[in-house]
Amino acid sequence: MATDNRNPEIRKDAINNRFVILSPARSRRPSDFKSKPQSKSDSNPSSGAQPQCPFCAGNEHQCAPEIFRVLEDDSMSDWKVRVIENLYPALSRRIEVKSELQEYRQANGTAGEVSLGGFGSHDVVIESPVHSVHLPDLSPAGVAVVLLAYKKRIEQICVDESIRYVQVFKNHGASAGASMSHSHSQILALPVVPTTASARLDSMKEYHNQTGRCSLCDIQKDKLLIDESTHFISIAPFASTFPFETWIVPRHHSSHYHELNEDKAIDLGGLLKLTLLKLSLQLNDPPYNFMIHTSPLQVTSSQLPYTHWYIQIVPQLSTIGGFEMGTGCYINPVFPEDAAKILREVEVS
Amino acid sequence: MATDNRNPEIRKDAINNRFVILSPARSRRPSDFKSKPQSKSDSNPSSGAQPQCPFCAGNEHQCAPEIFRVLEDDSMSDWKVRVIENLYPALSRRIEVKSELQEYRQANGTAGEVSLGGFGSHDVVIESPVHSVHLPDLSPAGVAVVLLAYKKRIEQICVDESIRYVQVFKNHGASAGASMSHSHSQILALPVVPTTASARLDSMKEYHNQTGRCSLCDIQKDKLLIDESTHFISIAPFASTFPFETWIVPRHHSSHYHELNEDKAIDLGGLLKLTLLKLSLQLNDPPYNFMIHTSPLQVTSSQLPYTHWYIQIVPQLSTIGGFEMGTGCYINPVFPEDAAKILREVEVS
Ligand SMILES: Nc1ncnc2c1ncn2[C@@H]1O[C@H](COP(=O)(O)OP(=O)(O)O[C@H]2O[C@H](CO)[C@@H](O)[C@H](O)[C@H]2O)[C@@H](O)[C@H]1O
Ligand SMILES: Nc1ncnc2c1ncn2[C@@H]1O[C@H](COP(=O)(O)OP(=O)(O)O[C@H]2O[C@H](CO)[C@@H](O)[C@H](O)[C@H]2O)[C@@H](O)[C@H]1O
Repeated sequence: MATDNRNPEIRKDAINNRFVILSPARSRRPSDFKSKPQSKSDSNPSSGAQPQCPFCAGNEHQCAPEIFRVLEDDSMSDWKVRVIENLYPALSRRIEVKSELQEYRQANGTAGEVSLGGFGSHDVVIESPVHSVHLPDLSPAGVAVVLLAYKKRIEQICVDESIRYVQVFKNHGASAGASMSHSHSQILALPVVPTTASARLDSMKEYHNQTGRCSLCDIQKDKLLIDESTHFISIAPFASTFPFETWIVPRHHSSHYHELNEDKAIDLGGLLKLTLLKLSLQLNDPPYNFMIHTSPLQVTSSQLPYTHWYIQIVPQLSTIGGFEMGTGCYINPVFPEDAAKILREVEVS
Repeated sequence: MATDNRNPEIRKDAINNRFVILSPARSRRPSDFKSKPQSKSDSNPSSGAQPQCPFCAGNEHQCAPEIFRVLEDDSMSDWKVRVIENLYPALSRRIEVKSELQEYRQANGTAGEVSLGGFGSHDVVIESPVHSVHLPDLSPAGVAVVLLAYKKRIEQICVDESIRYVQVFKNHGASAGASMSHSHSQILALPVVPTTASARLDSMKEYHNQTGRCSLCDIQKDKLLIDESTHFISIAPFASTFPFETWIVPRHHSSHYHELNEDKAIDLGGLLKLTLLKLSLQLNDPPYNFMIHTSPLQVTSSQLPYTHWYIQIVPQLSTIGGFEMGTGCYINPVFPEDAAKILREVEVS
C-alpha cells in the first residue's frame, strides 16, 4: 500500500468509544512461522451434498430440532433456509429464569460477583440447502430471505421478556472461528445486555446528549463511503479495528434490526452481497465474521433516539495478540480511508 | 471432562465487570474443517542459533537499536536479556506530543471523534540469547531477570509524563499471534488509558466504594486456587474468559507492576515458570499469551487503594467467532473450578 510511511494515529469514534492504533508500518513485519493461519477461507472444496454434513438437504434428521423453515417456491429442494436449534447450545431454554441477577456470594462472602443460570437460546440459520452455495452466491432476494429469517426469529424471541439482547452473527472459514463449512449463521439470545453493547449504548447516548442527534445518523461519509443503496450505505468506520472492516448502516434512523421490512431486506441483501463479493475479490476469499449490532430488547422509548442498528463485517486477515487481549485496543495497519478507496474501486462483474 | 452435562452459567466478576458464558456442552461440537488451528505452539523445531533469526546472539546487528541489555555473569554469551526497539513499531517516539486529546472534526463537523498522533513506544524484550530456550526453560532467577527488565523499562518510560499506560505482553506460538518464534515479549507505552484498563479501574473502584476494600485483595480463593508462593497466588478466575485462563496475583496490595523488587521477582519467576510448565504439560505445549495488567501511570494517590496489578495467562486453544467479537462476552466450555482442580494436580518433575 502506498501509505506505508504515514505516521501512526490513535483514533476513537463516537459509537464504540474504543481506541484503535492505525499503524501502516506494522504491515511490513516479517514472520518466521512456516504455517501462518490461512488467508483463504478454507471453504469445503467439493460441491454438491456432503454425506457427512448435517446442514445439507437430505440430512435434516442429523440436526437438532427445526424452529421454522422458509419453503422453496419452485423445485430443487423442499426449503431455502432453515432455522434450527444449535445441537451444542451455549445457553439453554431449559434453565430456570431468575428475574434479577443474584449476587453470588461464597461462604467467604465475595461481593461484586454475579452468577446466573445460563438461560437463553442459541439457534443456527442454514442459509442454503446446497453445501457449496455461500451467502454472496445468492441473489439479493435470496440474501433477503436469510435476513428476514433473522427478523422473524428475533420477533419470536422478543416475546419472552427475560431476553434482553439478541446477537446475530456469522462465522465464515476456520480462521474466523467456524466449525462448519456449510453456509450458516447463528442467533444467540441473552438474559443480559453484554458489555460491548452497553458500552456502545453509553457512548451513543453521550453523543446524543451533547448534540441532540444520533451518532450513526451523523456518521462521517466523506472519505469513508464505499457504496450506497436506496436505504443503506456501506462505509469504512473512522476507528476501524481491523483492516477492511466495513459497516452497513441504514440511512434513516432505526433502533432495532427487526424493524427491517421486505423491501428494505432486498435492498440490504443487494448491498451485503456486493460488500462480501468485493471483500472476496480484493482479499482472496478471506475468512470473515459479520455481526448485527442492534438495540436491547424490552427497552424504554427514551433509549430509542440514540440507538441505531448496523452490520459490522470483519475479514480475518491475521491473528490478534496479547496487546489487543490486554487493552481492547486493536492495531490496524490499514487506514480506513485507504480501505474505503480500494473497496470503492473494486469492480464486481 | 466429567462435568460435560453441567448446566450453562453466566458470570461476571468484580474486577473486569464483563459477562462470560460457561457452557460445557460447547466442548462436544464437531468440526468439519480439516486443518484446525494447531493446538501445539509451533515452536521452531531446530535448536541452537538460527542464521535467519535477528533475536539470536550473534545477529544483534539485524535488530532495531538496543535500549539496554542484562549482562551474562559467566561465559556462554555476552547477554542474558536484551530490550530493543521494535523495528516495526505500532507507536513512535518521533511523533509530536499533544498534551490534550484534540477533537477531530471534518469539514462536515463530526463530533465525538478523536484522533491523535501515534506517540508512544514499542519495545521487544528478547528473553534469551539462545533460539531454543523458552521462558519456562529458565530457572526462577532467570525468569526474574526478564521480569526485572520489564520493571526497569517501565521505570524509564514513566519519566515521560505524556505516557499514561504501559502494556507488557507475550505472544507464544503462531495461533497466539506471534510472528517470531524466538522467546520474547513486548512493551507498548501509550499516551491514553485503553478501554479495557479503564473499564477494569471503574469496576474495581465501584467495589472499593461499596466495600472499602480492594477487589483483588479480596479475590475468591476457595475452589479456584491453583498454587501459592511466598508473595503470590495463582488462581483460575471466577469469570474465566478462556479455558484454563490463569491469573497470578500479588498476595499483598500493590498497584503498579514496577513496584516489584528483586526478592519478589525471584518468587514470581518461580510461580510463573511453574504455571507455564503446568499449562504446557496439561495442554500439550499450547500457544499462549500473557498480559501484565497494571495501573495507569501519572495517577493520583486516590486511585491507588483500589487498583492491584496481576498477570493474566491465556492458553489459546480455539479461535473466537462473531459472538465474542460482537458482544465482548466469551463462551468458555471449562468451568474455572474444574480447570483449577486439574492444574492443582498436574505434577511437574
Ligand atoms: N447437527 C447439528 N445440529 C444443529 N447444530 C449443529 C449441528 N452440528 C453442529 N452444530 C452447531 O453448528 C454451529 C456451527 O457454528 P460455527 O461454524 O459458526 O462456529 P461455532 O459455533 O462452532 O464456534 C465459533 O463461534 C463461537 C461463537 O462465536 C465461538 O465461541 C467459537 O470459539 C468459534 O469457534 C456450532 O455452534 C455447532 O454447535
Ligand atoms: N529485526 C527486528 N528488530 C526488532 N524488532 C523486530 C525485528 N523483527 C521483527 N521485530 C518485531 O518483533 C515482534 C515480534 O512480536 P510477536 O511475535 O510477539 O508478534 P507481533 O508483534 O508480530 O504481532 C502479534 O501481536 C500484535 C500485538 O498484540 C498483534 O497486533 C498482531 O496481530 C499479532 O500477530 C514484532 O512486533 C516485530 O515487529
